[in-house]
Amino acid sequence: MQGISPPIRFDERGLVPCLAQDWRTGEVLTLAYMNAEALRLTRETQEVHFFSRSRGELWRKGETSGNVLRLRQLRYDCDGDALLALVEPAGPACHTGERTCFYRDLDGAADPAPDAPPAPGEPAPALSLPARDGAQFHLDAHAGQPVLVSFLRHAG
Amino acid sequence: MQGISPPIRFDERGLVPCLAQDWRTGEVLTLAYMNAEALRLTRETQEVHFFSRSRGELWRKGETSGNVLRLRQLRYDCDGDALLALVEPAGPACHTGERTCFYRDLDGAADPAPDAPPAPGEPAPALSLPARDGAQFHLDAHAGQPVLVSFLRHAG
Repeated sequence: MQGISPPIRFDERGLVPCLAQDWRTGEVLTLAYMNAEALRLTRETQEVHFFSRSRGELWRKGETSGNVLRLRQLRYDCDGDALLALVEPAGPACHTGERTCFYRDLDGAADPAPDAPPAPGEPAPALSLPARDGAQFHLDAHAGQPVLVSFLRHAG
Repeated sequence: MQGISPPIRFDERGLVPCLAQDWRTGEVLTLAYMNAEALRLTRETQEVHFFSRSRGELWRKGETSGNVLRLRQLRYDCDGDALLALVEPAGPACHTGERTCFYRDLDGAADPAPDAPPAPGEPAPALSLPARDGAQFHLDAHAGQPVLVSFLRHAG
């Protein structure tokens, strides 16, 4: 995991955007920024760290709320200037208490995603779907949430 | 759709990051940038437009490849400085031919998502899962792809 870093291209501020996506549900949770140190700490601790542009400091996501983002896989895009962290969130990812920061649409309608978390510790019965192209698809019946693993077949 | 715009905060370059996510599978396809004109055109035409930072010009995604991104819903985050476009891609979203720009992970392993597209025109039988909190979950058996609608319940 800590081998030679691929060519991540930080911008003129030394930052790269990183979006966090729930690895179980596929829901996009938040978009924030990492500097090199945040990226290093994220890989080392397997918990997502960002760099706060407003506060100008490193920030372990959830360090005050407890709603940390446990890293499951860290991907990067074709030109190396964006990151995608597939994560297991400990709670709502948004500071508003919403599960995702993207809880509104441009129609202006209040459109929050349902926020009820799955009961902790409850086993998650899984239904396997047919494999396709070597990828395995699962359906997680836990709390009625589908699990999307089509692009996660080497993850956790 | 074209009502009063919510307060989207463009940065000092006049840009806002926008990530495109496949509305059927939940897969994150690409991260790019919009200026105010790209945002306006995206909403007006219901096809995703970006602003190319390298070329310094407006860019209808897929205008040369044909792999346009049909807009299904446009969301914005809690502080209005990031957009999430839920889209129906006409083909691979990445200029490399991969389905998503995020086809590699930081372990360095080649880890492309399976790229075989579902057969066009084939009906997609759907299996409904129990509703939870008013949200409807579906499983799309078409080509073995699960469909994630937990946060799309007001979308097309």
